[in-house]
Amino acid sequence: MAKTRIAPALFTPPMPVSLVGAQVGGVANFMTVAWLTRVNFDPPMLAVALGSGHHTPSGIRENKTFSVCLPGAGLVEKTDYCGLVSGKRVDKSGVFDVFYGDLETAPMIAECPLCVECVVAQIVELPTNLLVIGNIAGVYADDSILTDGKPDAAKLAPLVLTMPDNHYWKLGEVAGRAWEAGKALKK
Amino acid sequence: MAKTRIAPALFTPPMPVSLVGAQVGGVANFMTVAWLTRVNFDPPMLAVALGSGHHTPSGIRENKTFSVCLPGAGLVEKTDYCGLVSGKRVDKSGVFDVFYGDLETAPMIAECPLCVECVVAQIVELPTNLLVIGNIAGVYADDSILTDGKPDAAKLAPLVLTMPDNHYWKLGEVAGRAWEAGKALKK
Repeated sequence: MAKTRIAPALFTPPMPVSLVGAQVGGVANFMTVAWLTRVNFDPPMLAVALGSGHHTPSGIRENKTFSVCLPGAGLVEKTDYCGLVSGKRVDKSGVFDVFYGDLETAPMIAECPLCVECVVAQIVELPTNLLVIGNIAGVYADDSILTDGKPDAAKLAPLVLTMPDNHYWKLGEVAGRAWEAGKALKK
Repeated sequence: MAKTRIAPALFTPPMPVSLVGAQVGGVANFMTVAWLTRVNFDPPMLAVALGSGHHTPSGIRENKTFSVCLPGAGLVEKTDYCGLVSGKRVDKSGVFDVFYGDLETAPMIAECPLCVECVVAQIVELPTNLLVIGNIAGVYADDSILTDGKPDAAKLAPLVLTMPDNHYWKLGEVAGRAWEAGKALKK
């Protein structure tokens, strides 16, 4: 099929919906973030890209720690809310039940079935965003999402964001198994 | 609910399934990549995290360009195949119909409904991976996935990977609208 050229800003892949937590001036703050990916295999590292002017980055710079929690579909309203209002103007510390892990300065969300706390490894300054790269220091999972001690996506039921149509999606049908589906094509 | 601690390596968010293209020694090569995110708003930039020892990074360093294409569910087998075999040993240039955009050295996949070509802005060297940050130079979309000239996720039908259960998923039900669902919680 012939391709049409569209504007660069219109490209986004399907994105994980997460809440990034930081302690800002002693107050737990949570920000909705979908620009998130694992970035290193060993040790396990992840990165989040945050608008440079947001409230959360100041807390991350202050403590050199942050968290990432994955909400389920039952938290759509609260999750979206944390992307609509800034911690500069609204205290979001009471939106969720907050807990802390070993790092003590990376607030996490009890209602989220899967949370990680990270230590900042590097911050890459980009034109309008900060790419915060962290070492995963602790992972906290609800027993209800584990199968044989490992996260099970069917139980976790994470949310996926697409843009520019701006929808949160649940996962649907399984389309195949990774590292399996292509074996028939190997000579 | 009480949380159980699990190993850091077991944390991955839901991930976009993509094929990263590069010209390596004059030959088009494609590698399955799910560690991908947008990283900068303006100008539009994205990043992909690749194992340092893979074949694709040498082509990216050679030309300072690469591509990212999003396959639909009909391409599960070929997409998975590109993650099972290395371009060091197998010529993958014939797996798909290849086209080029303005950059001329970023091979893209005609069968994928949404492709971008990027110019390398920065490569962040991490312990086992390279985080390749690129400026989005061109976006090429099938007319069939556009609504009012913009990508429509329901038509694009992208694939999402979850680990460690290793499933490719289609999108399912809409769980809410972003920047809308939380408005009721604003005072």
